[in-house]
Amino acid sequence: MAKKILIKKASGEKEIFSIIKLKKSMMSSGVASGVAKRVISQIRPKIKPGTTTAQIHRLAFDLLKSEDKSYAARYNLKKAIMRLGPDGFPFEKYFAALLEEQGYETKTNVIVRGKCISHEVDVIAEKYEKNIHAIIEAKFHSHGGGKTGSKDALYTYARFLDIKEAWNIKKNKGAKPREATLQSWLVTNTKVTGEVKIYCGCVGIKAIGWDYASEGDNLQELIENRGLYPITVLISLNHQQVRDLLHHNIVLCKQLINQDTLLSRLGFHGRQIQQLYQEINKLFGS
Amino acid sequence: MAKKILIKKASGEKEIFSIIKLKKSMMSSGVASGVAKRVISQIRPKIKPGTTTAQIHRLAFDLLKSEDKSYAARYNLKKAIMRLGPDGFPFEKYFAALLEEQGYETKTNVIVRGKCISHEVDVIAEKYEKNIHAIIEAKFHSHGGGKTGSKDALYTYARFLDIKEAWNIKKNKGAKPREATLQSWLVTNTKVTGEVKIYCGCVGIKAIGWDYASEGDNLQELIENRGLYPITVLISLNHQQVRDLLHHNIVLCKQLINQDTLLSRLGFHGRQIQQLYQEINKLFGS
Repeated sequence: MAKKILIKKASGEKEIFSIIKLKKSMMSSGVASGVAKRVISQIRPKIKPGTTTAQIHRLAFDLLKSEDKSYAARYNLKKAIMRLGPDGFPFEKYFAALLEEQGYETKTNVIVRGKCISHEVDVIAEKYEKNIHAIIEAKFHSHGGGKTGSKDALYTYARFLDIKEAWNIKKNKGAKPREATLQSWLVTNTKVTGEVKIYCGCVGIKAIGWDYASEGDNLQELIENRGLYPITVLISLNHQQVRDLLHHNIVLCKQLINQDTLLSRLGFHGRQIQQLYQEINKLFGS
Repeated sequence: MAKKILIKKASGEKEIFSIIKLKKSMMSSGVASGVAKRVISQIRPKIKPGTTTAQIHRLAFDLLKSEDKSYAARYNLKKAIMRLGPDGFPFEKYFAALLEEQGYETKTNVIVRGKCISHEVDVIAEKYEKNIHAIIEAKFHSHGGGKTGSKDALYTYARFLDIKEAWNIKKNKGAKPREATLQSWLVTNTKVTGEVKIYCGCVGIKAIGWDYASEGDNLQELIENRGLYPITVLISLNHQQVRDLLHHNIVLCKQLINQDTLLSRLGFHGRQIQQLYQEINKLFGS
């Protein structure tokens, strides 16, 4: 039997290294079973007690990159979301883009008057035909290992209450849409604590974390099920190119298709553009 | 006319150096007018464009110290409160002690079940004969220039609502005291933003900041009007001695009177104890 090796998680906790878990994490991001096996056989001898999950991830990522860029890109999704930082604004834009793909109308970074004070709301999402009007708090962390905790959920709820009171006052004066009710969502790219799950369930906040959702898809599923990868997954883009594209409101890989004019303007050469398109096409399996 | 000199505040903002303001800040902490004038005449030539308020404060403090230790101690009150840090627990203990002096029964750091989740409440203060039961959020900052903002007030309110719902459920089942209503207080050693003032007023949180209170005395007044100085004002105590005393739940200067046994046990020599008592006596003007 193989010896148990204790590795270190981003949170500082230790856990036993598991080949099954590593294989599962690769396959859940679309890596073919044979490739995953090949990668693991190369990683296994390099793992020592105290190796961090980040180091293992990096090893797997580098090996996948030499196998197939699109595998590597998808495997790197969680890290890619963090690369939308350091500030939270591109994540708000990105989450809004995910919602637009599902038929929502969205606005980001809106000042909304509550009953008591005004609030800076990260995302407003509306689907009129379904009477959904949601104010969304987007909690972004640019470092791994953190969790979104109950203070964030409490604060989200109090803000929601203040805005909802103003909204109800307006509705009572005859403002439309009369049938709609306001929803509160808390969205984050990290895990959420157990207390956040209980509290959000209790007061009726819709919570969406990296691997948890109080209803519907979690963030990973929202992205992977629809292929809505952020541009930060793309191996062909350097840091400055990512900044430039985000600056032009390009947050999804699919928004980059047939963008020759913009890409040229941003200083991409013909060959770079072809390489980029190739990577995007492989990402979508075409 | 004297030239206007721009000095730098802790927040990074600039303001014109004002002799009147400096004199006022000394006199409001009990420094005699003649002493304040003497100190200012020595400080004035040392102020250059870009001098920070912290540097000016330090100059004034050092000069006051050579004039009279008790003047210096009182002048240094805001800094002394910050020296209760870096973590917020001694500030909670200190604020609880201020309330005890006003006839409240207090508990610090209590886990309280709300309707949805459990909460770590910083201070609970009760005055049974007046039916006051308050859960208090103590927001401590160990650095100058910061303000307590609306997120803290929002989060305080949501926590209060959750605890109040559980409290009301218990009351409806017949639990006593039936007449009491629960209060929410937000207490901080910094300034509070205008939004905090409006929000707290709107939802009924009692807010107490360094120089603001929604009702009654602000923190500075609570301390100075009653001479409830924290031990961190005392020039005779070094950092380790402060830690040791806080560890023994001594937070107020007045708790140090006639504590020969404890002080000896903590390694104070006879002369140090006399020096300390002398400083405390001067602080209280005796």
